[in-house]
Amino acid sequence: MFAARIDRLTSSLVRDILAAASRPGVISFAGGLPASEVLFRASPQVLGQLPDDIWQYGQTEGEPMLRELVAIRAKALGIACSAGQVLIVNGSQQGIDLVSKLMIEEGTRVLTESPTYLAALQVFRLMGGCFVTAGQDEEGLLPESVAQADARLAYLVPTFQNLTGLCYSLDRRKALAQAFDGQSMVVFEDDPYRDLSFDGPAPVPVVSHLKQARWVYQGSFSKTLAPGLRLGYLIVHPDLIQAMTRLKQAADLHSNRLSQAIVAQVLMDGSLDQHMANILPLYREKRDVMQACLVQYLGKKASWALPAGGLFFWLTLKREQDVMQLMQEALAAGLAIMPGFAFDPLLRQTSTIRLNFSHATFEQIEQGAVLLSSLIK
Amino acid sequence: MFAARIDRLTSSLVRDILAAASRPGVISFAGGLPASEVLFRASPQVLGQLPDDIWQYGQTEGEPMLRELVAIRAKALGIACSAGQVLIVNGSQQGIDLVSKLMIEEGTRVLTESPTYLAALQVFRLMGGCFVTAGQDEEGLLPESVAQADARLAYLVPTFQNLTGLCYSLDRRKALAQAFDGQSMVVFEDDPYRDLSFDGPAPVPVVSHLKQARWVYQGSFSKTLAPGLRLGYLIVHPDLIQAMTRLKQAADLHSNRLSQAIVAQVLMDGSLDQHMANILPLYREKRDVMQACLVQYLGKKASWALPAGGLFFWLTLKREQDVMQLMQEALAAGLAIMPGFAFDPLLRQTSTIRLNFSHATFEQIEQGAVLLSSLIK
Repeated sequence: MFAARIDRLTSSLVRDILAAASRPGVISFAGGLPASEVLFRASPQVLGQLPDDIWQYGQTEGEPMLRELVAIRAKALGIACSAGQVLIVNGSQQGIDLVSKLMIEEGTRVLTESPTYLAALQVFRLMGGCFVTAGQDEEGLLPESVAQADARLAYLVPTFQNLTGLCYSLDRRKALAQAFDGQSMVVFEDDPYRDLSFDGPAPVPVVSHLKQARWVYQGSFSKTLAPGLRLGYLIVHPDLIQAMTRLKQAADLHSNRLSQAIVAQVLMDGSLDQHMANILPLYREKRDVMQACLVQYLGKKASWALPAGGLFFWLTLKREQDVMQLMQEALAAGLAIMPGFAFDPLLRQTSTIRLNFSHATFEQIEQGAVLLSSLIK
Repeated sequence: MFAARIDRLTSSLVRDILAAASRPGVISFAGGLPASEVLFRASPQVLGQLPDDIWQYGQTEGEPMLRELVAIRAKALGIACSAGQVLIVNGSQQGIDLVSKLMIEEGTRVLTESPTYLAALQVFRLMGGCFVTAGQDEEGLLPESVAQADARLAYLVPTFQNLTGLCYSLDRRKALAQAFDGQSMVVFEDDPYRDLSFDGPAPVPVVSHLKQARWVYQGSFSKTLAPGLRLGYLIVHPDLIQAMTRLKQAADLHSNRLSQAIVAQVLMDGSLDQHMANILPLYREKRDVMQACLVQYLGKKASWALPAGGLFFWLTLKREQDVMQLMQEALAAGLAIMPGFAFDPLLRQTSTIRLNFSHATFEQIEQGAVLLSSLIK
């Protein structure tokens, strides 16, 4: 009855876990929600000064002022671009949808890290993508493996990766860029966590080092300001901008103008940077508390690297264990965690789990760690 | 370099016309913009009372209260549904994108009216659809031609159609529903103009008469409240809701929560109906002024039916004429119009043009009619 791609809409496992995680009384390490207590909220002044024209249809590409402000910030990160290359989207997820429509059809080879962002894998798979994983070490993808990938699209999250918290070094970024420059694949760098950096600024984006390769760079206001705004942006290589703009138009004409006006105001008056300075101490403290709890209660049962940014710990259990069963036992005991295999492009079973530290309270972080320890062999 | 579907992203003709139409001094009959002077604008009270949780991630399906309110209104139109079948989307265009992903792949046969909504054709084409047109008379699609269509999806706008202003009679709706009930195709009824009815309420939707066929019904707040809100809704047959929800999640996680909170408030306090009562007289007057001007200046050169709702007149020129050239000459003289062939699924050349009456001022409507008359043979 449906198009064939619907058979590839992956199972609702993650939806089910997240639904269970939101039940009252459940401690959730499962989602990727920013801390509700420090979310940006538009002030009455900002809401009282919304431009009068935002209620009418707007431009597909986004509000001109917001595009300018995004380009200015991107240039400060070393990305050579103009406002004309900026496309405002409804959060990162839409950026992934648009790039997928541009690049992926049945059998298209997509190079990804492993593990990587689950919701990107889902969209790539929906559009017909098949996954190529490359060699990786603790600094990220290996440049020499890029050449062998023979992919049309490379998707990477080199800065505080969703799962592992990994942040590629400057040298690795340069070497990877050089490797991509020798290939025809489009490089899609997803960078939602850059500003959630706990121990100093991250190296500039991989795409800022590219000389030949075509690229798309993505940022988001969901982790810095508020996810409910549903606002992110793509910065797109000139060769791709026309098709991407048409795809955005076909997807929903343009993004919400209230949110765009609010975020433009926040960028213009400097309050984004102020907001980040205000919220980072809480995120850093939550990370440190989870680190301390994990060391105390799980130090002998799992290994992990301290994330220098982002929202997650990625644990590898020292003894092999069925993490689906672990997840279910934890949920029954009131703790939601995310099994690692869901994030593997090839869905390989591994004894890994992802733990979010931003949403739970300090007390819940400790309770959760104690509970988890009691369930791990 | 790109996925093959990108070759089917249709030309930027319409974008070019709309861009030209927005130049200062140009009278625009080209777009489909609601009248800016009567757009809904959220009051300071509404903006001051936004729920505190809207800044966090929300539910894929939409805000529960808004879904309930949409379902209540749909039931009043005879659509048997529950809030669980309602999916909040970023305006109608996203609804079209989601239904296309669900149903259309390379070579999928899609039954449409001719002419029909251009931006729907574009998305159907992008996803691989090919078009089947059926017999039509002045009351709409012919029920007997539905059986011969052999399509997987039927797309129709039976109430004040975007182009022709056509409104199917109650009898035709019933007969069509019966015809669809004998077929396996999914019926997608797009209904953004229902509340812009100038001469009394329109008959209830076609889908409300269906007994067997699966269906999707779409409404929008762009034409009633404000397009900048980017908010519409799908009501989905139970067999389709799970896949559609997953597609929405893959597309952008969920719709903007500020807009959802605003619209829920407007539906709850009855101010949508009050707003419609306030704005309809202006729309009716604009329609009547354009009708009078067309009769006076174009009565001998074109034929048309008086639209009972919506935003457009659909003119057929009495002498054959190259309407692309006409469009260009008009634009050079300061008037933007839309050539009719762009709205034909098969892109057949016809001497038809679409004129929007909602956006221009009363003076511009007369000036535009005079100008147009001088250019038509």
